[in-house]
Amino acid sequence: MQKLKQTLYRIIFGTDTPAGRGFDVILLWAILLSVLTVVLESVKSFRVAYPGTFQFLEWFFTILFTVEYFLRILTHPRPWKYITSFFGIIDLMSILPTYIGLFFLRSHFLLTVRAFRLLRIFRILKLGRYMHESQVLISALKKSMYKIVVFFGVVLTLVLFLGTLMYLVESEQNGFTSIPQSIYWAIVTITTVGYGDIAPVTVLGKFISSVAMLIGYSIIAVPTGILTVEISDAVKSSKQERQLVCPSCSYHEPDQEARFCKKCGSELE
Amino acid sequence: MQKLKQTLYRIIFGTDTPAGRGFDVILLWAILLSVLTVVLESVKSFRVAYPGTFQFLEWFFTILFTVEYFLRILTHPRPWKYITSFFGIIDLMSILPTYIGLFFLRSHFLLTVRAFRLLRIFRILKLGRYMHESQVLISALKKSMYKIVVFFGVVLTLVLFLGTLMYLVESEQNGFTSIPQSIYWAIVTITTVGYGDIAPVTVLGKFISSVAMLIGYSIIAVPTGILTVEISDAVKSSKQERQLVCPSCSYHEPDQEARFCKKCGSELE
Amino acid sequence: MQKLKQTLYRIIFGTDTPAGRGFDVILLWAILLSVLTVVLESVKSFRVAYPGTFQFLEWFFTILFTVEYFLRILTHPRPWKYITSFFGIIDLMSILPTYIGLFFLRSHFLLTVRAFRLLRIFRILKLGRYMHESQVLISALKKSMYKIVVFFGVVLTLVLFLGTLMYLVESEQNGFTSIPQSIYWAIVTITTVGYGDIAPVTVLGKFISSVAMLIGYSIIAVPTGILTVEISDAVKSSKQERQLVCPSCSYHEPDQEARFCKKCGSELE
Amino acid sequence: MQKLKQTLYRIIFGTDTPAGRGFDVILLWAILLSVLTVVLESVKSFRVAYPGTFQFLEWFFTILFTVEYFLRILTHPRPWKYITSFFGIIDLMSILPTYIGLFFLRSHFLLTVRAFRLLRIFRILKLGRYMHESQVLISALKKSMYKIVVFFGVVLTLVLFLGTLMYLVESEQNGFTSIPQSIYWAIVTITTVGYGDIAPVTVLGKFISSVAMLIGYSIIAVPTGILTVEISDAVKSSKQERQLVCPSCSYHEPDQEARFCKKCGSELE
Repeated sequence: MQKLKQTLYRIIFGTDTPAGRGFDVILLWAILLSVLTVVLESVKSFRVAYPGTFQFLEWFFTILFTVEYFLRILTHPRPWKYITSFFGIIDLMSILPTYIGLFFLRSHFLLTVRAFRLLRIFRILKLGRYMHESQVLISALKKSMYKIVVFFGVVLTLVLFLGTLMYLVESEQNGFTSIPQSIYWAIVTITTVGYGDIAPVTVLGKFISSVAMLIGYSIIAVPTGILTVEISDAVKSSKQERQLVCPSCSYHEPDQEARFCKKCGSELE
Repeated sequence: MQKLKQTLYRIIFGTDTPAGRGFDVILLWAILLSVLTVVLESVKSFRVAYPGTFQFLEWFFTILFTVEYFLRILTHPRPWKYITSFFGIIDLMSILPTYIGLFFLRSHFLLTVRAFRLLRIFRILKLGRYMHESQVLISALKKSMYKIVVFFGVVLTLVLFLGTLMYLVESEQNGFTSIPQSIYWAIVTITTVGYGDIAPVTVLGKFISSVAMLIGYSIIAVPTGILTVEISDAVKSSKQERQLVCPSCSYHEPDQEARFCKKCGSELE
Repeated sequence: MQKLKQTLYRIIFGTDTPAGRGFDVILLWAILLSVLTVVLESVKSFRVAYPGTFQFLEWFFTILFTVEYFLRILTHPRPWKYITSFFGIIDLMSILPTYIGLFFLRSHFLLTVRAFRLLRIFRILKLGRYMHESQVLISALKKSMYKIVVFFGVVLTLVLFLGTLMYLVESEQNGFTSIPQSIYWAIVTITTVGYGDIAPVTVLGKFISSVAMLIGYSIIAVPTGILTVEISDAVKSSKQERQLVCPSCSYHEPDQEARFCKKCGSELE
Repeated sequence: MQKLKQTLYRIIFGTDTPAGRGFDVILLWAILLSVLTVVLESVKSFRVAYPGTFQFLEWFFTILFTVEYFLRILTHPRPWKYITSFFGIIDLMSILPTYIGLFFLRSHFLLTVRAFRLLRIFRILKLGRYMHESQVLISALKKSMYKIVVFFGVVLTLVLFLGTLMYLVESEQNGFTSIPQSIYWAIVTITTVGYGDIAPVTVLGKFISSVAMLIGYSIIAVPTGILTVEISDAVKSSKQERQLVCPSCSYHEPDQEARFCKKCGSELE
């Protein structure tokens, strides 16, 4: 019994056995398909044409993930630790909405929560290769966080200032009906998205916008510069090869190609 | 009396005591809330619903900042230096508009000046950690300034040239009513904002636009490249560890791990 | 006969003889002109004005490329290897559509396939200089692939999440008619394209959009940082000069300027 | 006489005397003001209000630049070399249009040529500091040219392919009236400009567009990466300090701080 639990644990939580990898791959497909169901159900023509199919699929995936959830709790050596972990909460949140929908009227709110099911996709990060690569990126992001915060502080101040200025320059008829609305316009402009739903009409407004665009165009270089430097460091340190130390005389050999210690002739590891 | 002044100075201007940090954090919240008041007051539905609240809040923050302003003048060892400093002027500008509004009709102009209150947010830079990070960015920006100026010179020339060209190619009916208008369009295009309020209509105009877009898409790489190089340098030199100097023979030890001077055997700091 | 085949092989497949380079340059022009024909034929006014010209040109280029295709098969030492190679398949696909068009009604589908003719342009990569440069870029792209995949995974999850959220926040009248439609909007926004065909209308929608834009504006730094690091590595290793080795004592000279071995005095290659 | 010519030559062409720098600064202002005149003249309300002023200013600047042009020819030691140089041609082109306008009807074409006057602004590059900085950028651009050409080849092929595909997917009613029109749309999309004058309407079209946007969003990283690497190299080599060589024993001292040769004790330059 205990052995069965251990074997199941290795299959469900581990990725070091063929069965474990297989379980993860099947799970990933199930997650993707369940998300696809939610997405397609939102299309009116589909929803009207196949109402039963979507209801069936939703319950199919919910029961599948419920079984998986309880299996995880049962096989984990310390169930409570799993339940309160990041993935434990995500796993629960991906099945709850359907059950809650039984008791209450199907609300729009539940649909959003069901979108959390998508977060389970990050389980892919457990799959070897991707884990390493994402760790390099996360490490670079963490290191550059303080600089990015300063940068965002400057951008937000700029956007608030531009928004207030344009609210005063352009009259309310031109779409700049309030400062929050103008701030929305400033963000649309600074980030170079440029929907065009609100655009400057007066000559002065166009001049200010032009300056704002050129600023937005230039300062995009700042986060890129910050991240490039940190990614460069993170990649370098992840590539850094082990240092060779002679087992008999403790000499540190800098040459990675050396096979014998050049001080005492001992074979290096 | 003198001692009270010194204690207050450390609380108001310094960040090295718990009381000093507390004062700064409360001040930051007051600034943020006062800015929020200005922003929300611009929304018509709010302004109509709570006219008294906004008037009260404006006077509340103005008096608060006035008290703070006089406290700063009184406790500073050289008051005139503070008054003429960057933050001194900003602090004055953030309270003046409300008082001027008493004597003159409430004009839109005053609202903009009140937006300057926002600049006080930069006081956050005094808070330890962020100061260091922003210094790295400012130092990188300063070093790359001449290159950025050259780059902007090229962009402005390009935009002027494109504007003139498009003014001639597209007739006035297509929105290109004057060269300044065309330059506005060129900036919207080159910076990849693309509102769509003015867009080329003729075949030749579309061709020229396409070339302009591809140019804009490529040259965005130039400021990014410049800044990345300078940020990389600034980060490196800020990370550079202190150099070890032997206290007895003044030998400069390059190896950061060394614990004893290899010339005279003295223990290194 | 065998010699003629070899000479033709060097002209058609090689670029190391003047005739071989000449053949490639003529071919490139033919490809460019044939693509231009397809493009111009799609313009109604041209198609109506010169119907015969376009039909003639299409057959002219098809026959030209057919002759080239058979010459390649005949002169290649292992014809089957060429036929199943990347360029072999592209070459076949660039002539097939016109012949198929004889038997079936001219369908729109064939036009797309004829666009594949364009892929033959990549033959330019065989021309000396460009081959080297593109290899550096391809090598950098290959090395950063796993990181780019992780990045795209995050972007797609973000876009799906934003799409679902906006579908719920904005009502269907505002253009967000289904989750796929909302995802389309999210991609338009995150990539800073911003057509403006769908734009948020409600206050909450505008707020969420603003956050999405600022995120999109920042994370563009991630692939740039990744690629810059890898291109930097690829350029460095492609620039790495050959190492000097003494022909008599096998000493490895690190100084690229050295002309004589500093161990035994032999002249270095 | 000869001496006057030499003095004038140093003032007009040189920047190493106070008079020479003064001449260049006045000239730059004259160029900027003359360009401003052309720009403002295009605004209908100004043109109608002050017709005489614009005509006067145009002749004023033309005569000023004509005098400057002949002074340059007269003082240059080899006049023909100046006339056929890049700036010689630009200088001529900036005065010719006004004279041609006397004989022919004022055509729109002449206005464009007058925009060339703007190119004279690049004379600023002669001014010390800017020259050095722009040389670093130009050198980086030159070195990365082949890679940028390969990149543009890929972008153009992609745009042509996308244009053809969308022409077939979206019907002509949706704005994709011909392949050139579709290519224009593809460029607007890939470069993330996104005017919105043409936008996909069908579901398949929106899907293809989404993929195109994500591609455009990613490949912008390629030129940035290329340029960053080359700018980094160019900056480094421009910063590279001179190498110290001992004047008596020719020892190459790598340490920039050394004041005496460590081999023979001679003082280093």
